[in-house]
Amino acid sequence: MAEKLEPAAREAALLKLNGWIYDPQADAISHDFKFKTFSEAFSFMTRVALAAEKMDHHPEWSNVYNKVRITLTTHSAGGLTEKDTKLAERIDRLMI
Amino acid sequence: MAEKLEPAAREAALLKLNGWIYDPQADAISHDFKFKTFSEAFSFMTRVALAAEKMDHHPEWSNVYNKVRITLTTHSAGGLTEKDTKLAERIDRLMI
Repeated sequence: MAEKLEPAAREAALLKLNGWIYDPQADAISHDFKFKTFSEAFSFMTRVALAAEKMDHHPEWSNVYNKVRITLTTHSAGGLTEKDTKLAERIDRLMI
Repeated sequence: MAEKLEPAAREAALLKLNGWIYDPQADAISHDFKFKTFSEAFSFMTRVALAAEKMDHHPEWSNVYNKVRITLTTHSAGGLTEKDTKLAERIDRLMI
């Protein structure tokens, strides 16, 4: 079972991520993505969904037309864990 | 351009829908769907995405694991239009 990241580990992990914002209240990270069209946004979501399913760790997310907001936290641990930062890294690599 | 539905037309349209809730403040309809797994939830989302793209009318929606919340309204019209009730009907048919 994943354990909540200690502040130092969290800071180190966040430094490796691209544009994710840490919410201390929710102990979660989130990122807003913007695309040209709904088709591009949903294509991205499909790739994230496949990655999430493979990692057995799933996002909280919403979509309005060309915008996608992703929030990552680990409910079973009550906060941010390595599962979240690893999924965020994976999502970052999809954007390259 | 789609026009906002008058109350009588809205009521008639809602009677044909299955489980959609009208929010008078937002002039929008929404529906919470629950599935067994993330995989089932995202498969449903993919079918909705294809239908939405075909109809050129897109949902506001969010997903957390096996749950999907869909909200439909027409921003260009400032409220609920036939585009929304038609997309809702299409989504209902996916659930049969």
